[in-house]
Amino acid sequence: MDSRTGLPVVGMIGAGQLARMTHQAAIALGQSLRILADSPDDGAALVAADVVVGDYRSYPDLAAFAAGCDVVTFDHEHVPGEHIAALAAEGRQVVPSAEALRYAQDKQQMRQHLGDLGLPVPRWAALSDAESLADFAAKGPFVVKAVRGGYDGKGVWLPASVAEAEPLFAAGIPLIAEERVPIVRELAAVVARSPFGQGAAWPVVETVQQDGICVEVLAPAPDLDEDLAGEAQTLALRIAAELGVVGILAVELFETADGLLINELAMRPHNSAHWTIEGARTSQFEQHLRAVLDYPLGATEMTAPVVVMANVLGGPDETPMGTTPMSLDERVHHMMAHWPDVKLHLYGKATRPGRKIGHVTALGEDLAQTRARAAAAAHWLRYAEGAPASHAREHAQEHA
Amino acid sequence: MDSRTGLPVVGMIGAGQLARMTHQAAIALGQSLRILADSPDDGAALVAADVVVGDYRSYPDLAAFAAGCDVVTFDHEHVPGEHIAALAAEGRQVVPSAEALRYAQDKQQMRQHLGDLGLPVPRWAALSDAESLADFAAKGPFVVKAVRGGYDGKGVWLPASVAEAEPLFAAGIPLIAEERVPIVRELAAVVARSPFGQGAAWPVVETVQQDGICVEVLAPAPDLDEDLAGEAQTLALRIAAELGVVGILAVELFETADGLLINELAMRPHNSAHWTIEGARTSQFEQHLRAVLDYPLGATEMTAPVVVMANVLGGPDETPMGTTPMSLDERVHHMMAHWPDVKLHLYGKATRPGRKIGHVTALGEDLAQTRARAAAAAHWLRYAEGAPASHAREHAQEHA
Repeated sequence: MDSRTGLPVVGMIGAGQLARMTHQAAIALGQSLRILADSPDDGAALVAADVVVGDYRSYPDLAAFAAGCDVVTFDHEHVPGEHIAALAAEGRQVVPSAEALRYAQDKQQMRQHLGDLGLPVPRWAALSDAESLADFAAKGPFVVKAVRGGYDGKGVWLPASVAEAEPLFAAGIPLIAEERVPIVRELAAVVARSPFGQGAAWPVVETVQQDGICVEVLAPAPDLDEDLAGEAQTLALRIAAELGVVGILAVELFETADGLLINELAMRPHNSAHWTIEGARTSQFEQHLRAVLDYPLGATEMTAPVVVMANVLGGPDETPMGTTPMSLDERVHHMMAHWPDVKLHLYGKATRPGRKIGHVTALGEDLAQTRARAAAAAHWLRYAEGAPASHAREHAQEHA
Repeated sequence: MDSRTGLPVVGMIGAGQLARMTHQAAIALGQSLRILADSPDDGAALVAADVVVGDYRSYPDLAAFAAGCDVVTFDHEHVPGEHIAALAAEGRQVVPSAEALRYAQDKQQMRQHLGDLGLPVPRWAALSDAESLADFAAKGPFVVKAVRGGYDGKGVWLPASVAEAEPLFAAGIPLIAEERVPIVRELAAVVARSPFGQGAAWPVVETVQQDGICVEVLAPAPDLDEDLAGEAQTLALRIAAELGVVGILAVELFETADGLLINELAMRPHNSAHWTIEGARTSQFEQHLRAVLDYPLGATEMTAPVVVMANVLGGPDETPMGTTPMSLDERVHHMMAHWPDVKLHLYGKATRPGRKIGHVTALGEDLAQTRARAAAAAHWLRYAEGAPASHAREHAQEHA
């Protein structure tokens, strides 16, 4: 308990943008998030008061950090499961538990367990060698995935042949194969669950990927069949309950001609629900805190008919003319002038080409218009080109 | 400039709830607010990374703090004007300027200047002694106000007679007298202004006072005449421009049978606009930052037809039965269970009877319902009595 506020202390392992935005939500609840950061320059470490620098792979670092917290949760799923279990054995409250989290850490266990529960997963197989892949490949198009550690398209391969996958086996990475599913689109069903067992679901969204990275989220998923939407929410709530998840559970789904298939699970605030900060009565970050504190969950209603989130990626280091691009500060100026109603979220990260450095959210009545505003604002922040420049030209002409 | 983010650094003098909520808004803009706190236990100091403990009345402390900032602004108006002017003379960017801020610090200068500008102020007079008050009192009912330093009803006296005011003169406090205005209600017009001169106004609100403390804010002001609302916004934008305000300007107004009268000015985020966090596209805290950074201002549209903010005050130290009241943490639990859509903001302050320790915001379609929800949630958080207790009883009966 924090003796100054009389409230329990929540600790988060990891100090990226998820911890940064969770801290922002914590402030309203009278909290100050305690953060275990890799570096004092991590996005969340730049903005929080109670930061410990340490290694999330080191048990002594984790134990020392947890000793100052009433409950510990995660910004990422890279903490070794045996350390999480050991913390719990020492009496620390850690949520989600190692038992739950392994299904977000290990694709093979996830596929196996969800299949055993009778939930819809793509056809898959554990791979021991190229021969086992050849057997799988005989049944149709396939993808190869690392069992552990993939994200943003990393750890997923689409080899044209079994031979092309040989180097992966040679590298000794544990792998599974999955059928290459002909998808209509990708969806995400994000829910929260408290230790008490209360569940809460946001509307199902469409996630738009580019080069394996989520670039846009459309809430609610446009023209989604109502039954399918209900099925996706029920599926996510059921997984949360079956696995004993505490906090946010994001279920990434494939929509196919034959229905839904589960793609991935994440047990932490998730990119597919950043839109909830302005777009839902309770944001995923506040909800995650409510859940880990075992507070009652907040209302998940949308605050506008259409909400679109677009990720802001780091722009190129040089312009096409070889000059240094406009600074981030200048790009923000122009973005704000052009879209006074688009909400900006920057993560305090140094800009690197293609790196997620923030996101923008637009709210509206009309999908096409709202989506265009979010996309244009995100494009402008990345490339300093697009609408504001043409707007400036028009403006100059008016005054000419 | 922050070398890690490439963005300018904003410093705020004072570490109360206004700085706390400004820091929360700063996080989204990629910023981390630099804060000059009286104590490391101040509400904003508990949640921010870049906190300097120092005395806002000490010029060396102010100068050292300002040296690490690109622009400095305020959580309160108690910084001596000569220090602000001296910082500016040294080349520091300080907004609002000493020149503007004195009209929020000194009621006599404010009344004089706004009157000179032809703006509607109550009849008033500077007081030198009891005799000057007797002259003023001869013209009708009056109030006496301290020229400097009043807030939340402090520094305002309603003596029944001139004789009753004698001790104030004996205490040597600079005073003014004002007519006791027969008011319909109190309103607030809150606007922002950037150094570039851009202005932005939120809808005019009604502020409901109790014992001199604002307890509720109703947005927009119910049934306010459209012309009067426009007049109030224009008035506030004009004052911001005439006084050269940078950042938020809150103009507290009396609505009378004969029109509007200006009561008070504040040049910082203000209690009457806390509703904007969820209730407007851009919150006053983000807007204040945009203004001090000379960024373009954000959209001020409301996000729901009706928004009601209710302040949460510290409850009694004892229950009527003489037992210790339910802890804040328990009260928060029950409040969240009963009002899953009411938004909570706690300020990280120790609870003292009657002290503002947070606020709640409810959004809706219907004023009476929305107001009842906000008021009941705030009442519950203060007294741990009201709707949740009766709800709990009903629940217990159902299970009996």
